[in-house]
Amino acid sequence: MMLAIGLNNLPLIKEGDELEKIIAKAIEEKGIKLEDGDIIVVTEKIVSKAEGRVIELNKIKASKKAQELAEKTGKDPRLVELMLREFKEVIKIGENFIIGETKHGFICANAGIDQSNIEEGKVKLLPENPDKSAERIRKFLEKKFNVRLGLIISDSFGRPFRKGSVGVALGASGVIALQDRRGNEDIYGKKLRVTRVAIADCLASLAILITGEGNERIPVVIIKGLDYLGEGKASDLLREKEKDVFR
Amino acid sequence: MMLAIGLNNLPLIKEGDELEKIIAKAIEEKGIKLEDGDIIVVTEKIVSKAEGRVIELNKIKASKKAQELAEKTGKDPRLVELMLREFKEVIKIGENFIIGETKHGFICANAGIDQSNIEEGKVKLLPENPDKSAERIRKFLEKKFNVRLGLIISDSFGRPFRKGSVGVALGASGVIALQDRRGNEDIYGKKLRVTRVAIADCLASLAILITGEGNERIPVVIIKGLDYLGEGKASDLLREKEKDVFR
Repeated sequence: MMLAIGLNNLPLIKEGDELEKIIAKAIEEKGIKLEDGDIIVVTEKIVSKAEGRVIELNKIKASKKAQELAEKTGKDPRLVELMLREFKEVIKIGENFIIGETKHGFICANAGIDQSNIEEGKVKLLPENPDKSAERIRKFLEKKFNVRLGLIISDSFGRPFRKGSVGVALGASGVIALQDRRGNEDIYGKKLRVTRVAIADCLASLAILITGEGNERIPVVIIKGLDYLGEGKASDLLREKEKDVFR
Repeated sequence: MMLAIGLNNLPLIKEGDELEKIIAKAIEEKGIKLEDGDIIVVTEKIVSKAEGRVIELNKIKASKKAQELAEKTGKDPRLVELMLREFKEVIKIGENFIIGETKHGFICANAGIDQSNIEEGKVKLLPENPDKSAERIRKFLEKKFNVRLGLIISDSFGRPFRKGSVGVALGASGVIALQDRRGNEDIYGKKLRVTRVAIADCLASLAILITGEGNERIPVVIIKGLDYLGEGKASDLLREKEKDVFR
């Protein structure tokens, strides 16, 4: 049996906040007992905010290239400027979107820059190194509660071919991110062929069902009863450009 | 708090089985009390089997076109023949894969034809009309247990840009499939912009964490404590070809 509990008792997070301590306090206040094997999903929003990845748009000056792309896409030139700083490659543009590959290797629209759940006039970039952030938060919580945990930093991305966004793991620590089951057997004893499961992304999608994406104020989900601790990182899930038939 | 329970007490499913009755029996045997709002995820595998979508490969004769594609991709010509019958359009081919759009509108590798968890020499096609199958199973269980349920028929697909497969809803009934949150407010009272969430796919990804994809024999997951009943269908999630920038 799997259990997932959302934490709705965190304060609004701001730059410089020690997020791991705030999460620990929220867990204690809720009276949740962490156990070995629990997996904690933290939404990217609060990680980025705590890490100061918040930018005042009117302090940004758009380059010529950004202005051109802004005209083509109908987006704010200052936002486009930030995207160009975050992307290492622009892949597709269209009305109101720019899809590219971020410095981390994520392929997403608008470099994951988000204007929701942030003060007017400000925008939020993705964390600099979400795998590292995940590790930092995990290690703090493991020490604090004396348990072995997995930790995911989650976001939601749209995707080709299907409508709507689903969860993605931007960062992961202490969990299996990509489970390679090739060589395992099926129920008839035959070898499984192409079964690599993106466990960390599935965990992020599970979390979305609980966090919502609006004003729910549930930025942390604690998952109990699964068996996915391991040595994975979210970067395990990045597909190399040359192996991607849709780029 | 969300709870998910896997059913590991179903018999091996075969053609002609009345799947809805078998699931009902498994729920009763486990002593699970269904409640209004519960969502049941059923893996595609057992739906397809019960519906007789199982083919003996050596009864298939490959057309010339299938033979050509088989040579290019290194796949079994009889399998390719089946794929060509299932696909309405082939989109990309490569070493050991053919990606296309099925008659249902799913974009996936190898037309979702699966050789795992099926007897040697046989393969399994996707259900003919998974939304309809989902509705049939849902209505049976609702009547039987006198509750309002959601039902998802789940599969796992690979995807562009990221490694590993995640859950997809092939069929859905009684649940929100695509949640449109545009117009809702964020925590600062600003309108959310582009927030459509693929709830049904997130539910399918959640289920994968419990069903596994190998010999676990957990083909049904019961999810309690979420609030996603609605009028959705899995076909709500299909993106129109002309709106897909990666086709």
